[in-house]
Amino acid sequence: MKFQINRSQLIEGVQDVMKAVSSRTTIPILTGIKMDVHSEGMTLTGSDSDISIERLIPMEENGTVNLEVQKPGSIVLQARYFSEIVKKLPNDTVEIEVGERFETKLRSGASEFSLVGLDPEEYPRLPQIEEQNVFSIQGDLLRQIIRQTVFAVSTSETRPILTGVNIKLEDGVLSCVATDSHRLALRTARIESNTEELSFQNVVIPGKSLNELSKIVEESSELVQIVVTDNQVLFKTKNTLFFSRLLDGNYPDTSKLLPSESKTTLGLSTKDFLQAIDRASLLAREGRNNVVKLATLDNQTVEISSNSPEIGKVYENVITESMEGEDLKISFNAKYMIDALKAMDCTEIKVLFTGAMRPFLITPVENETVKQLILPVRTY
Amino acid sequence: MKFQINRSQLIEGVQDVMKAVSSRTTIPILTGIKMDVHSEGMTLTGSDSDISIERLIPMEENGTVNLEVQKPGSIVLQARYFSEIVKKLPNDTVEIEVGERFETKLRSGASEFSLVGLDPEEYPRLPQIEEQNVFSIQGDLLRQIIRQTVFAVSTSETRPILTGVNIKLEDGVLSCVATDSHRLALRTARIESNTEELSFQNVVIPGKSLNELSKIVEESSELVQIVVTDNQVLFKTKNTLFFSRLLDGNYPDTSKLLPSESKTTLGLSTKDFLQAIDRASLLAREGRNNVVKLATLDNQTVEISSNSPEIGKVYENVITESMEGEDLKISFNAKYMIDALKAMDCTEIKVLFTGAMRPFLITPVENETVKQLILPVRTY
Repeated sequence: MKFQINRSQLIEGVQDVMKAVSSRTTIPILTGIKMDVHSEGMTLTGSDSDISIERLIPMEENGTVNLEVQKPGSIVLQARYFSEIVKKLPNDTVEIEVGERFETKLRSGASEFSLVGLDPEEYPRLPQIEEQNVFSIQGDLLRQIIRQTVFAVSTSETRPILTGVNIKLEDGVLSCVATDSHRLALRTARIESNTEELSFQNVVIPGKSLNELSKIVEESSELVQIVVTDNQVLFKTKNTLFFSRLLDGNYPDTSKLLPSESKTTLGLSTKDFLQAIDRASLLAREGRNNVVKLATLDNQTVEISSNSPEIGKVYENVITESMEGEDLKISFNAKYMIDALKAMDCTEIKVLFTGAMRPFLITPVENETVKQLILPVRTY
Repeated sequence: MKFQINRSQLIEGVQDVMKAVSSRTTIPILTGIKMDVHSEGMTLTGSDSDISIERLIPMEENGTVNLEVQKPGSIVLQARYFSEIVKKLPNDTVEIEVGERFETKLRSGASEFSLVGLDPEEYPRLPQIEEQNVFSIQGDLLRQIIRQTVFAVSTSETRPILTGVNIKLEDGVLSCVATDSHRLALRTARIESNTEELSFQNVVIPGKSLNELSKIVEESSELVQIVVTDNQVLFKTKNTLFFSRLLDGNYPDTSKLLPSESKTTLGLSTKDFLQAIDRASLLAREGRNNVVKLATLDNQTVEISSNSPEIGKVYENVITESMEGEDLKISFNAKYMIDALKAMDCTEIKVLFTGAMRPFLITPVENETVKQLILPVRTY
């Protein structure tokens, strides 16, 4: 194998596939990045066996030549060293040449590295995906959906299925749910494509996979193709394939958790409410569970308070946009509320309560594509 | 005590004195910040007993009113909570009022905190400094001197005196030395003031104090007054007093370590040399001691190389600006070289070698105010 490659293209590609590479793998060759140089360009592959990322650097793109190939071939190089070296090489171009016993020379300017390579034949094959269940979604919407749900997955391995986001597709509507059993995030989106016949229910993608995916998907309207199989999901963009295994097991039915009625309804400025909760939580963190209290006052006002005997007390008054129904006193985890409010992406929210001990619902005023559910804490 | 204060002034002042506050103190009241409101404004104090910082927020400054005082007084508040709260309060102004049993109310907009305060009488007095040995130096020069020396202090407590920077003043020349016994940094500066008579030798300021100090001193030509006593040093800027204890013990005489002759002299571009060393060190880090090799070649070129059997080899050629004297092969710690080169603040350097096993000297080509000495490693 011998070729010259544009260094900034190489840096970008390596950074993408590095997101799948873990230094704590039990399969030594997976600490490496695989490079395949072929007639279409170079394909980089990184994997930790849960996530695999394949990235093509095409021979030419937008009229710019990315690679000049003297001899195609494959090699696996230690990911950590390779990525750091590539970043620091002096010239705009890097020459890569594989010699005997996989010894690989990187040349750039007056710099020459000679790296111990690994046998590419030993690198595991990527999952073979049957492209039967396919739908598409805009990159920026996919990123938003991930951001609005993934924070609510469980970080505990006691119920592994809850560490993932459950995605369903039915009647052209995609719905994504995450819950750690103390709070729940739900995001729905209409999928604009010829997929009325396509439907699935129990697809659960690990939260970690989605976090890495959203670093790779561009914030643009370009479409991402999503292929769902029994145990794998594949996200395809122009030059990148992102594979993730799915979680085994049945995701709990969360549809009945969402309250259908409300006894107290508040309309609030997202920002004012978020800042008040944020300040109140300053003193609540030390105490148990970061709990703050909310009480309706007269004059369309709610009071957020918290009390930590050794440090002090805080009272925040927030003027509501609207306030309907019964008076209410309720306590909840401030972090859950802050997470939920940051995921709303709207200036005004509705909060619907059905009593001090029942889960309450937060949605944007203007639509209901995002629903955040929080379980209160028993203190009042 | 009751007053209103400009919130951004308060944030700035609190951030300054926080640099002296440690959460790991054995004296509970030192986890707090002391506020004294008096006729000139408010003084904030923070201390970990090694470093103490006193910061004045004057009643008025540049025509802006910073404080309005209804009742002077003093209080100590938990530093961590107080600083976080002040940063997040909603309005431009904060009202602070101390009630019974040191309970302190902070009011800003619709936010009210009530904090458990501590008795200001229990806060330790700051050191009393006799202002006998005083000299001045520009803020930006002081910061540069610290940056060019403090990285070389020892981080090991086996010889505590080496964890500080030794400052000397003689014949109007300030010289600052730091060494961890593997490398040494020396910076001299002429002090432009009426201080010919002032002279001292064995003043050793803890590296940690200087690191904190340089965060507070402004990057400007404004003068910083420095007061030296037997066991304390005080740095005075317009509104800030920064006290540090001095280290006990005799700093070793380092003057004889600097080589006076040279067998091989290289002239190098600081940037080219730094980048080559940086790349070579990528493979050297894993091996023992991060050692790279330097060898003079023909054609005014030096080769930097490093070899890590399991990862690979690297060769860097650097074209020198000048090369005189004997051929040379020498090995040294790449990190020490990178630290030294980053502290040079000049585009061209001289490196003076007196043999493969003798310490070598790095200085700017244009002057000798900075000298960096590095002990080689025995590998060739």
